[in-house]
Amino acid sequence: MDSVSPIDWNAVAADLAPIECLADRASLRAKSRDFFWYSPVLNEKLKGVSAELVVCPANEAELIRTLAYCHERRIPVTPRGGGTGNYGQAMPLRGGIVLDLLKLDRFLWLKDGVARVEAGLKLIDLERHSLPQGWELRFHPSTRRTATIGGFIAGGSGGVGSVQFGGLRARGNVLGLRLVTMEAEPQALELRGEEVMPAVHAYGTNGVIVELEMPLARSWPWREIIVSFPDIGGAAAFGNALCEADGIVRKLVTVCDWQSAQYFRPLLSHLKSGQAIALCVVADPSLEAFETLSTAMGGTIVFQRDAAEADDIPPLYEFTWNHTTLWALKADRSITYLQCLFDGPDYLDKIARAVATFGVETPMHLEFTRLNGRVAAFGLQLVRYRNEARLYEIIHWLEANGCPVADPHTYILEDGGMKTVDEAQLAFKRRTDPLGLLNPGKMKAWSPACS
Amino acid sequence: MDSVSPIDWNAVAADLAPIECLADRASLRAKSRDFFWYSPVLNEKLKGVSAELVVCPANEAELIRTLAYCHERRIPVTPRGGGTGNYGQAMPLRGGIVLDLLKLDRFLWLKDGVARVEAGLKLIDLERHSLPQGWELRFHPSTRRTATIGGFIAGGSGGVGSVQFGGLRARGNVLGLRLVTMEAEPQALELRGEEVMPAVHAYGTNGVIVELEMPLARSWPWREIIVSFPDIGGAAAFGNALCEADGIVRKLVTVCDWQSAQYFRPLLSHLKSGQAIALCVVADPSLEAFETLSTAMGGTIVFQRDAAEADDIPPLYEFTWNHTTLWALKADRSITYLQCLFDGPDYLDKIARAVATFGVETPMHLEFTRLNGRVAAFGLQLVRYRNEARLYEIIHWLEANGCPVADPHTYILEDGGMKTVDEAQLAFKRRTDPLGLLNPGKMKAWSPACS
Ligand SMILES: Cc1cc2nc3c(=O)[nH]c(=O)nc-3n(C[C@H](O)[C@H](O)[C@H](O)COP(=O)(O)OP(=O)(O)OC[C@H]3O[C@@H](n4cnc5c(N)ncnc54)[C@H](O)[C@@H]3O)c2cc1C
Ligand SMILES: Cc1cc2nc3c(=O)[nH]c(=O)nc-3n(C[C@H](O)[C@H](O)[C@H](O)COP(=O)(O)OP(=O)(O)OC[C@H]3O[C@@H](n4cnc5c(N)ncnc54)[C@H](O)[C@@H]3O)c2cc1C
Repeated sequence: MDSVSPIDWNAVAADLAPIECLADRASLRAKSRDFFWYSPVLNEKLKGVSAELVVCPANEAELIRTLAYCHERRIPVTPRGGGTGNYGQAMPLRGGIVLDLLKLDRFLWLKDGVARVEAGLKLIDLERHSLPQGWELRFHPSTRRTATIGGFIAGGSGGVGSVQFGGLRARGNVLGLRLVTMEAEPQALELRGEEVMPAVHAYGTNGVIVELEMPLARSWPWREIIVSFPDIGGAAAFGNALCEADGIVRKLVTVCDWQSAQYFRPLLSHLKSGQAIALCVVADPSLEAFETLSTAMGGTIVFQRDAAEADDIPPLYEFTWNHTTLWALKADRSITYLQCLFDGPDYLDKIARAVATFGVETPMHLEFTRLNGRVAAFGLQLVRYRNEARLYEIIHWLEANGCPVADPHTYILEDGGMKTVDEAQLAFKRRTDPLGLLNPGKMKAWSPACS
Repeated sequence: MDSVSPIDWNAVAADLAPIECLADRASLRAKSRDFFWYSPVLNEKLKGVSAELVVCPANEAELIRTLAYCHERRIPVTPRGGGTGNYGQAMPLRGGIVLDLLKLDRFLWLKDGVARVEAGLKLIDLERHSLPQGWELRFHPSTRRTATIGGFIAGGSGGVGSVQFGGLRARGNVLGLRLVTMEAEPQALELRGEEVMPAVHAYGTNGVIVELEMPLARSWPWREIIVSFPDIGGAAAFGNALCEADGIVRKLVTVCDWQSAQYFRPLLSHLKSGQAIALCVVADPSLEAFETLSTAMGGTIVFQRDAAEADDIPPLYEFTWNHTTLWALKADRSITYLQCLFDGPDYLDKIARAVATFGVETPMHLEFTRLNGRVAAFGLQLVRYRNEARLYEIIHWLEANGCPVADPHTYILEDGGMKTVDEAQLAFKRRTDPLGLLNPGKMKAWSPACS
């Protein structure tokens, strides 16, 4: 599978008609790239990657026709939603076809807090349908305005709301999905419950997700608040206390030291130079208790707004999760980032030790979350990048100090979060993509011999 | 204050007219008692307690008139809601007047998830107003159908829903209250935020609550489920796993061994004799994940129903919290119970040790809860009562083994849960009830010298 035999891409497009195909240079470039350039390591490795053709099926039938055609001709196919992945997940390493799923964007139904939608539906459009009925996503990546639900399930992990509901891997957060296999006669499989797991965070290597059944959350009237603290220790302690306050309903608890907050240009007029901040989204009825807690812990509220209010400052969540890094990158292209987990009864100590050890080299950024019923924090530290060796020195220090790293500098599925081969995922791929044509090069455990 | 000078109660009733007063024997008895007889210790001590007059103010003005009148004549006043307390909280130890608050039952307003109500409103009626608007109580005692919101705040602690929102003491679960003081000119005080705390769980000793501002929760379509397990260890492990499953929305997780479940008469045809059970209330969209988890952990679902479905089996929550004891007492009046906390990283071990030590003498009953962001369980074990000495032997064993007991065999505020004097509560009483006329005999720290 390492090279693709010469193919006449105009003929492919003609064969696939009336399915929309794009072959112009601009489309090929735009649809072959994601936010891989967050990582200097990936930037170096992936900058030349390009598809030969972008195919945009409008429904499942067109999708099946496309996959059957590609299977017959052994053409690699890389599914793509909004293209906001930031480890090159959606980049076609072996060329071939990028399968643009944005036209599969129907909102199918909503009943008793469960939504059935097509995979290419943007998260913001999903909520445009559900919010008027009183339901919202349990959690969403900070790319809510651009990412698709299929791309989130296949390439993401958690986000705004995970402080209440955990992440995609927590039991019960994806109820079912419909997936099309890469075979001579592609099958549409309906998976439910635990069966969905092999396809969650699999980078589309073991099937193309066409529909999703997502459990939603009752929507609340939310408020956005920023609290300022003299130092990162105080802000982190507040983040923890807020998560431990069972009576305060919260959707987002992000903590940044000044080193990372200084890049939040649209917020700067509200921030106190040199101070750490907590960016929070809290339910309206919890506002008073929130204020009391923040004052008691030495914080000062410097910004407050109804989450629904529109003005020239973007939604607060667009300064959190992987957006934090984006603000820094806008100002300084030499910056990159890490993803680690601060967990366990001493997780605040672990944070303090990381801060003490690396100081301004890794501006601190924490996302509080719920993990197996406990409070924990993801570290999405910025890194003032020197070179790859130093980057891995920091990673190794973190791992040696009890903070597992989900390496964002690799496009290899197993090297990112899980570290070990996911046997269920691999077994599932044997069944759904026996020729290894789906997003090839991403699943390390896979080799042609697997089939 | 230890004795009340002879008073002509007919004259008092005449003076208070047109405020409704009850002086007939049946009313006096009914309104002077609560569920104190749960405890053989309290039953012995309190069975003779009676008020001389029941006064039923219909609004705040009538209440103020009543309190001013009683203050002038030094008449003890014991506030009363539904009378479902089970430590004699609402029993007039020094006689005098029982202040029946059931007529203060207006639902004032509901806005953005916050309800303002009068204190005598029954919980079921509060939700009758809020549910059609999509909101429900964050948690309620299992006496939802009979208790008042004021009685819950003044005499309760937590209940169905605490597994999600913690208890009344968790910051943010009571937003504000209006309270009338016991002075020559009774004042109506508006307390907000932390200020409410001295009046929460104070047994009405430091003011009469007239209005409450309660933060609600978004309502869900709920399902009631009972899962059967071979033994209590398996059921408790399941309870814990369910609480750690961040993606499963749950409102109630109760675990009973067969020794306590055998008394659930209306459920018996569904239960497997000899097995432990978990009684759960779970959101509809979480049902599949719940089923998978229970099967994976060796459980069998033996009962399932929409929480809204009415049939001859009472709501599942009426087998939980302090209702569990009630079912046992219906069958065997010699049974009583305990209230302890199983907390900390080894809380399941503590439960196992208590089971191993006391066996069938203390049939196990667990209520899972959230406490400062963690999962924990209250033990509301039944006790096959032998005598007071043995009861306190068990209590001391529990405390010595790291399981603090909130003694339900005392009507003394401080001896119940908190153990130490709550200085804020005492200070507040000095201000709101300088003569010590409100529910006298309940607050140990109080003595006339305090005033
Ligand atoms: C600024 C920024 C902020 C971010 N914040 C977060 C965050 O908070 N949380 C988080 O988890 N991630 C975050 N990410 C990563 C990324 O945005 C999310 O994973 C996002 O949900 C991806 O959605 P997408 O539609 O853009 O997917 P894409 O990038 O298009 O695809 C992601 C992966 O899924 C595969 N895929 C896409 N659609 C399908 C399908 N229908 N069937 C099978 N496979 C498919 C692709 O092949 C690719 O491997 C962030 C990224 C950026 C750049
Ligand atoms: C079967 C059963 C199950 C129970 N389950 C639970 C449970 O799940 N959780 C729980 O916390 N408790 C529970 N309890 C205890 C009790 O039901 C609750 O505390 C309940 O909320 C009390 O409400 P009530 O209106 O009956 O109050 P009452 O019993 O009338 O009064 C309780 C206390 O509050 C005072 N009081 C009442 N109204 C006011 C007011 N307006 N202002 C000032 N003081 C006032 C009274 O003087 C008394 O001290 C249970 C009891 C029983 C018998």
